[in-house]
Amino acid sequence: MFYVIGLGLCDEKDITVRGLEAVKSCSRIYLEAYTSILMVNKDRLEAFYGKQLIIADRDMVELESDEILRDASTENVAFLVVGDPFGATTHTDLLLRARDLQIPTQIIHNASILNAVGCSGLQLYNFGQTVSLVFFTDTWKPDSFYDRIAENAKLGLHTLVLLDIKVKEQSEENLARCRYPSSCLYPSVSECACLKLRGRKIYEPPRYMSILTAVNQLLEIESIRKEGVLDGDSTLAIALSRVGSIPLGDETTDDGAQRIVAGTLSDLQAQPESVFGQPLHSLIIAGKKLHEMEAIYAGAFAVNQENWNRIANKTS
Amino acid sequence: MFYVIGLGLCDEKDITVRGLEAVKSCSRIYLEAYTSILMVNKDRLEAFYGKQLIIADRDMVELESDEILRDASTENVAFLVVGDPFGATTHTDLLLRARDLQIPTQIIHNASILNAVGCSGLQLYNFGQTVSLVFFTDTWKPDSFYDRIAENAKLGLHTLVLLDIKVKEQSEENLARCRYPSSCLYPSVSECACLKLRGRKIYEPPRYMSILTAVNQLLEIESIRKEGVLDGDSTLAIALSRVGSIPLGDETTDDGAQRIVAGTLSDLQAQPESVFGQPLHSLIIAGKKLHEMEAIYAGAFAVNQENWNRIANKTS
Repeated sequence: MFYVIGLGLCDEKDITVRGLEAVKSCSRIYLEAYTSILMVNKDRLEAFYGKQLIIADRDMVELESDEILRDASTENVAFLVVGDPFGATTHTDLLLRARDLQIPTQIIHNASILNAVGCSGLQLYNFGQTVSLVFFTDTWKPDSFYDRIAENAKLGLHTLVLLDIKVKEQSEENLARCRYPSSCLYPSVSECACLKLRGRKIYEPPRYMSILTAVNQLLEIESIRKEGVLDGDSTLAIALSRVGSIPLGDETTDDGAQRIVAGTLSDLQAQPESVFGQPLHSLIIAGKKLHEMEAIYAGAFAVNQENWNRIANKTS
Repeated sequence: MFYVIGLGLCDEKDITVRGLEAVKSCSRIYLEAYTSILMVNKDRLEAFYGKQLIIADRDMVELESDEILRDASTENVAFLVVGDPFGATTHTDLLLRARDLQIPTQIIHNASILNAVGCSGLQLYNFGQTVSLVFFTDTWKPDSFYDRIAENAKLGLHTLVLLDIKVKEQSEENLARCRYPSSCLYPSVSECACLKLRGRKIYEPPRYMSILTAVNQLLEIESIRKEGVLDGDSTLAIALSRVGSIPLGDETTDDGAQRIVAGTLSDLQAQPESVFGQPLHSLIIAGKKLHEMEAIYAGAFAVNQENWNRIANKTS
């Protein structure tokens, strides 16, 4: 059996009882470690499972799927995914490959940010399509998220904005030495398989987009596109950090717990980075169909209560 | 501590390890049993937890929240919810009440149908707003879902349609004897609190909307509204049953396992009820922005492969 098991959002104890039993039955266990991360490291998971884990980076999942699936017809093999197994497209690929090889599969679901975002107080059925926001560079500022937020906003719906993470990204120096740059078949240089031929790769340290970077990037695109989809003073947003971990009681410490911070985009922009807690972060852009109960629930997280109430009352 | 704990979708083993530890620490444990159901009964949960459960019906949650929250400042009390805690509005109410009473709360997330629906092969970020479809009566056919599906369809997005369940609904006979029908403050007669004053209530047996009822209701509204949002022959849909339970291997038996059935609305309408498996059911209306990989993955569940490919190829 090939198991694809969701680990939930926070630590080793967010796996389900069914998932834990499956893990313990497996002869090989892969931990997917590039679309999201847990808040604990591999050692802690291994100690909890009593099993060794194999880290599966993007290269391995995309290029060595047959090795991951090896012998899964006769043994149990697990592929562990932070959140729910269907959060990232790449896992669907792996399941399609298993189907081709006639390997039996079983999915063990778990919480993902797409439903846990309900902790903000905004109702899940009032969310439109989810968007991703990637790190801008000087020359690359993909802005299709802006159209998606606009579509949602037009319907009064909230948008969950997933913030970029860069794990095991190859360094510029490394990329610059690509063998076949002009004829590369891969959609982006960083995914180019021929890099494999050039021996040892050089990786950047991991990066997780902060709330302030996200808000700045959103407003930067608004300032270019000027369609009035986002406005510093009147767009309400909710910043989420480490959803699913124990809520922070004492405001003066930072123990890595969940934080929810609400306000206008300008309110959020005016906060010091530390207010938003530790990564991973997500951001909600609230739609105008804000119900009274949503406004009240989320309002408790507002950095400027007066601002929040004034704008929320206009919309709800 | 007042814990609100998601149980996931299937049976007693879908609780997380963190959730199970919390349950075991509680002096009172409520099981919410009216917005959704697990596929196992209360006895099985009690045996697994080694604890007694108190069934919380709609009346109790809406009228006796202070009893549910009693002593939660000094003891641990759990409120168990099928799926994720934020699936239903009513639980937000309970958390707001706890906040008013300054009772510390902790949410333990889990899978819900809103993310587990990814098992269909359709990508979660291509879903628009979620809608609910209630049982029609001869005189009551609420159709606001139609506008929401239309909004999603216009953007090419998929729609998750949650199908009605009726658990512990009062019988018509019972409702007919309401004390103050003309001055009732409750939004619907079935929620009327003054019913409580009249002694023993009479309840209908539970009902769960089937896929065929859902498809018929959808097409009935299309035939009234005639806006071309849904079409028997060209709208692709995916019927889901018991998401999260072990996938059915042997097509000739019905062991209550997950089933996924894809086709046009007419394809689905032509199937016998048994094809769709046991409740709970959900239905996805596929949007026109169907990616090739989504079409391939979901196509394996099609009742009429040729039909599916022909239409999916036009859209993807």
